[in-house]
Amino acid sequence: MDAEMINPFIKATMNVLETMAFVKSTKAGKPFLKKDNVARGDVTGVIGVTGEANGTIYVTFEEGSILKIVSNMFGEEMKELDSEVADAVGELTNMISGQARRELESIGKVFEAAIPSVITGKNHCIAHITKGPQIAIPFSIEEGNFLIEVCLEKQS
Amino acid sequence: MDAEMINPFIKATMNVLETMAFVKSTKAGKPFLKKDNVARGDVTGVIGVTGEANGTIYVTFEEGSILKIVSNMFGEEMKELDSEVADAVGELTNMISGQARRELESIGKVFEAAIPSVITGKNHCIAHITKGPQIAIPFSIEEGNFLIEVCLEKQS
Repeated sequence: MDAEMINPFIKATMNVLETMAFVKSTKAGKPFLKKDNVARGDVTGVIGVTGEANGTIYVTFEEGSILKIVSNMFGEEMKELDSEVADAVGELTNMISGQARRELESIGKVFEAAIPSVITGKNHCIAHITKGPQIAIPFSIEEGNFLIEVCLEKQS
Repeated sequence: MDAEMINPFIKATMNVLETMAFVKSTKAGKPFLKKDNVARGDVTGVIGVTGEANGTIYVTFEEGSILKIVSNMFGEEMKELDSEVADAVGELTNMISGQARRELESIGKVFEAAIPSVITGKNHCIAHITKGPQIAIPFSIEEGNFLIEVCLEKQS
């Protein structure tokens, strides 16, 4: 998977966080190839995609980062990972994948998106059932980290 | 969502369990409309779909039921929800959704499927971010229960 597939996700994430949650301090780390097939975090948005390739996009937040982001979105301090926070993670996942897909479409790579799910549970574990490459992009804000994983495999 | 959309999932589940895991005692309960937007279980396979409608299929197992099913598939007694069991849940989710999609295609309803994820973690919680109806189909075998949830929403 090359940079032209990954950069739209970085750009979409920075943009969504800035416009929706007024978070300007987001730092993107260096994308890396994941080896262990597993996401671990406190809350994860998941959205399936089909089209140019079939796959899944995961956005996994540490509690500190998502509470800050959602507090900013709502203009109200959120203190726990409740159903309102889960809904917000679903919205963020939708917006990030939507903006990234629009940019990918502009270079001729067309994806359709399924509807998102949000997984909560301290230290939940998500196995990605794919033989395709899994690219992870680490992000951080002052209050904590989050990770976007893009798993795509060519249609057989 | 009407019976013609749901019956293919029931038929596919019975068939996959019988042919892959030699489980002939599977009982399907009455499908019902879920109100609470949340899946709770010990291990869940999730697969996104797009096409005729966008949505997500969830297959959530209690520990007892999936250990029996995977033990039968492998011909070896599985005692805990490890990564081999997670892989098997991914395969089962793929096969159930694949067979159901083929049957839906034969009545003119064409879906594409993303790749599955498998969530483990005792009492994990999955919120379905959708305004569409969520149909649940309860199943049981001697060793425990499992539930299939079909959440589909028309494309906007």
